Amino acid sequence: MDILDQMRAAIGDTYVLTGADCDGWTRDWTGQYTSTPLAVLRPQTTAQVAAIMRIAQTTRTPVSPVGGNTGLNGGTYTDGGLMLSLDRMNQITIDAKGRTATVGAGVILANLHDAAAQHDLIFPLTFGARGSAMIGGALSTNAGGSNVLRYGNTRDLVMGLETVMADGSIMSLMGALHKDNSGLNLKHLMIGAEGTLGIITSAVVKLAPKPRAYATAMVAVASLDVALSLLQDLQTASGNAVEAFEFMPRAYMQGHAALFPDVRQPLADIHDVTLLIELGATAPRDADPLPDGTVPITALLTDHLMPYLQDDRIADAAIAQNEDQRAKMWAIREAAAEIAFARTPFVDTDIAVALPDVATFLDRMKTRLHALDPDATDLSVAHLGDGNVHYTAYPSRDDPALKSAIKTAVEDEVAALHGSFSAEHGIGVSKLATMQRRKDPTALATMRAIKAALDPHNILNPDKTIPR
Amino acid sequence: MDILDQMRAAIGDTYVLTGADCDGWTRDWTGQYTSTPLAVLRPQTTAQVAAIMRIAQTTRTPVSPVGGNTGLNGGTYTDGGLMLSLDRMNQITIDAKGRTATVGAGVILANLHDAAAQHDLIFPLTFGARGSAMIGGALSTNAGGSNVLRYGNTRDLVMGLETVMADGSIMSLMGALHKDNSGLNLKHLMIGAEGTLGIITSAVVKLAPKPRAYATAMVAVASLDVALSLLQDLQTASGNAVEAFEFMPRAYMQGHAALFPDVRQPLADIHDVTLLIELGATAPRDADPLPDGTVPITALLTDHLMPYLQDDRIADAAIAQNEDQRAKMWAIREAAAEIAFARTPFVDTDIAVALPDVATFLDRMKTRLHALDPDATDLSVAHLGDGNVHYTAYPSRDDPALKSAIKTAVEDEVAALHGSFSAEHGIGVSKLATMQRRKDPTALATMRAIKAALDPHNILNPDKTIPR
Repeated sequence: MDILDQMRAAIGDTYVLTGADCDGWTRDWTGQYTSTPLAVLRPQTTAQVAAIMRIAQTTRTPVSPVGGNTGLNGGTYTDGGLMLSLDRMNQITIDAKGRTATVGAGVILANLHDAAAQHDLIFPLTFGARGSAMIGGALSTNAGGSNVLRYGNTRDLVMGLETVMADGSIMSLMGALHKDNSGLNLKHLMIGAEGTLGIITSAVVKLAPKPRAYATAMVAVASLDVALSLLQDLQTASGNAVEAFEFMPRAYMQGHAALFPDVRQPLADIHDVTLLIELGATAPRDADPLPDGTVPITALLTDHLMPYLQDDRIADAAIAQNEDQRAKMWAIREAAAEIAFARTPFVDTDIAVALPDVATFLDRMKTRLHALDPDATDLSVAHLGDGNVHYTAYPSRDDPALKSAIKTAVEDEVAALHGSFSAEHGIGVSKLATMQRRKDPTALATMRAIKAALDPHNILNPDKTIPR
Repeated sequence: MDILDQMRAAIGDTYVLTGADCDGWTRDWTGQYTSTPLAVLRPQTTAQVAAIMRIAQTTRTPVSPVGGNTGLNGGTYTDGGLMLSLDRMNQITIDAKGRTATVGAGVILANLHDAAAQHDLIFPLTFGARGSAMIGGALSTNAGGSNVLRYGNTRDLVMGLETVMADGSIMSLMGALHKDNSGLNLKHLMIGAEGTLGIITSAVVKLAPKPRAYATAMVAVASLDVALSLLQDLQTASGNAVEAFEFMPRAYMQGHAALFPDVRQPLADIHDVTLLIELGATAPRDADPLPDGTVPITALLTDHLMPYLQDDRIADAAIAQNEDQRAKMWAIREAAAEIAFARTPFVDTDIAVALPDVATFLDRMKTRLHALDPDATDLSVAHLGDGNVHYTAYPSRDDPALKSAIKTAVEDEVAALHGSFSAEHGIGVSKLATMQRRKDPTALATMRAIKAALDPHNILNPDKTIPR
C-alpha cells in the first residue's frame, strides 16, 4: 500500500489532503516560505497522530507539524514531507476551581481566551496573531508576547503535556501539578523544540483570575534609563502588578502614523521613547472604584507618574479612561508586524539582552548600521520589561551581501552583551545559520545528540531548529 | 600514571582526598547512605572540573557530584566512584541593579541569602537545610521548599547555567535573559537531572526585592476544603502575595509538642488542621505602618480571617506581632524532618497531587494503611499551596514486606489521582524502583535514550534517577 493509502486507512480519506486542497496550509504568515507537501494530514485524536508517526517512521517520511502557521521563521516549511495539521484537535475543558484548562494542540489561542473568560479567568499568553495561532504551535515555539513580564513565557503556563514521539509512542506527562521532580524534565525539553523531538498533542495549562481592572497608559519618557527606573518604581509600588511595559521609539510611532493616518494618537507629539504601560488589579482594594469614581490601580499609576512629569523625565502621558481607549492604545502596539514589514527590503530580528543593555544595543546598532550603509534606517519595538527587542533594519538597496552584513552586526552586538539572537520567535529555518555560527558549541553538540537519540531517522521536522 | 595521580596533577595534591580524609563527605544527612568513594575531589574552577571529567571519561570512572549532602534520596552515594565536591567553588557576585546573582555551585544557600540581604534583596529559595545545602545540589535536584507558591521552584529562579559534560566539554548557557528561544532548552534539562547528564558548576539566579513586611499567622481551620477557599480568598485580596501556605495535621502538632515540650505553642489547643500562612509585602502601601501602628498587610490578613472566625470555619488563630513570634512559628514548621524521623520504623514519601485532591489522598491512605497494618500510624506535613505532601507512615513492626506494601499503596493512590510520586526531593537511589514501576514508559525510554546519548560510558552519577 502506498504511504498515502496507509494514511487514509489510519485517519480517513477526507483528512488526507493533496494538491490544491493543501492550499490553506502551504503558505505561512510571512509569505516567505511556501511548502510543497506530499499531503496535509488532519488527525482528530492522539491515537491517530500515533498511527501517522508509525507509518512515517516505517517509510522514513518527514513530518512537519502545523498549527495556525503564524510563526515567523518558516518552522512549518516542508518540501515533499507531510504537513501534520492539528486543527481538528481543538477540545477545551476548563476546571474553573482548579484554574486549569486541558486543551488540544489545535485550539486557537483566542478561543481559549473566550472559554476562560466565561469563568472570569484568563489564559495570560497573548500576542497579535491570537486569532489564528494554535496552542500546539505556541507550546512548540515557547511563544512570548506582551504579558511575559507578569505571567512568564508559554512554558511557565504549562502544567501537563502529551507528546507523540518519532516511533509513534505516546508520552503522557499530563497532570495539574505544581511540583514534579520525577526524573529528567521532558516537559520543558518538548516545549520550544519546534516539533523536532515529538508532536505535542495536548496540554494542561494554568489559568489566572481575570484582573478586575486595568490601568493603561501611553507615556513619553526622556530616555530608556528613565523607563527602567519607572518600571522598578511601578513594580515596587504595585507589588509586581505590571502586566506590560512596551517600548516604541520615534521611528515606530512615525511608521504607525504614516500607515494609519486616520487614527487619533493618544499623545499629541511623537517622542523618542514612547511606552505602553499596563497594570492589572485582581484585588478588590485595587480594582473597585472609590466613592468619587476613582479606580485605585489607576490612581496608583497616575500618582507614580506625577513626580516624573514634574521634573520633565516624562514629557507627556495619556491614561486610558475606558476600555475603548485602552483597546486603541493596544492597537498601536499590535500593529507592529504591519508597520515593520510595510517597507522592503528589511532585515528583521528578535533579540534579548539584560534590561539595562537595551539602550546600549540600540546605540551600537545605529553606529554599525550607518557604517555599513549610510542611507539605511531602522525601527524597533520592544517588550522592554523582558529586554526583548524586535529590531528591524531597512538597507537602502536589496543587496544580499549587505543584508547578511547587517545580520552579522546584530549577532555581534548581541553576543558582546551576552544576549540571545532568538528571544521569542524561535529558530525554524530562518535562523539555522545563526544557530550554527553563534550558539555555544557544546550546547549545539548536545542538541544534535538528543535529536539523534530521539529521532534516529530524522523524520520530525527535519532541518529545523538544530543545524546539522 | 594511576587515576588519582592524574587527578592530583589536574587539581593539586591537597584536593584529592582518600581514606579517613573523606569522612566529611561519605555520610549523607539521612544516615541511610554511606559512600565508599575511591576519592573525594575538590576542584576550584570550572576548568578543573573539566579536567576531572576528561580523566574520568578516559578511565571510565564514575563521578558523583556532592554539595551539602542534605538530599534525602541518596543522590550522592557511590561505592568505588569519585565524589566531586563543589564546595570550593563558592563565589557570589551580586548585580543589585539587575537583581541577579552569579554563583558557584558550592555556594551555601544561607550565604547567598546573607549576600542578597546586604542589597535589600532576597534569593527566594529556602528550606530547613539552608545552612548546609549548596546551590549546585539545589539546582541538580530542582529543590522546592516553602516559597514555591510565590516564587516558583528552583528552576524558575535560574536565568543562566554552566555545566561540564561527560567528556569534559563546558556548556555555557550563562546570561541574565528573561527570554531565550535558541533551540532545545538545555537549561531546564540539566536542572533536576541530579548530576546524571552533567556537572553544574555555576549559575545566574534571580533575586527579588526583600518584602518590607510580612504578615504571618498560625490558623486552625475546620477542614482542608476550608483551607483551600481561604487560600483563594487571600490570593485574590492580596494580589497573590501569599508566600507560604503550610499544612500541619494533628499528628504533626502532637509530634512537635512531644519533641519540644518546652516550646510555647502559638495556639492553645491541638487541631485537626493547622496552617502556617505568610503574606509578603513589597509595596509601601502594604508594608508601611499607618499612624495607629497597624501594618496594612497584617490588617488585610486579619480582616480576611474574621468572617471565617465568625462562622467557626476557623477555630483559632494567632498572628505574629513581631519578628521573634514569626521565627517561632516557622521553627515549628521547619522541625519537620526531626519530627518525622524521630520514630522508627517509617516509610517517608514526597508526593504531589492537584490541590483539591490533597484531602482525598490523605483519607484514602488512612483506609489503606489501616487495612495493611491496623496498628500503624501516620503523620504528614504539606506545602498545601503546591499540593505537595510529605506523608510518613509508621508501621507497627520493621517488616520489609509491610513497608514495601505501604509504599505501593502510596504509589497506587498517587497514580489514581494523576499525581507525582516525587514532588520536590527527587529520585536519587531511593526512588529508582518507583520510577521503574510508575513513570510513563515512553518517558522512561526517552530518559534512557538521552542519558545514553549524553553520557555513553555511564560515568555521570550512574544508577541514579533513571532506572536501567
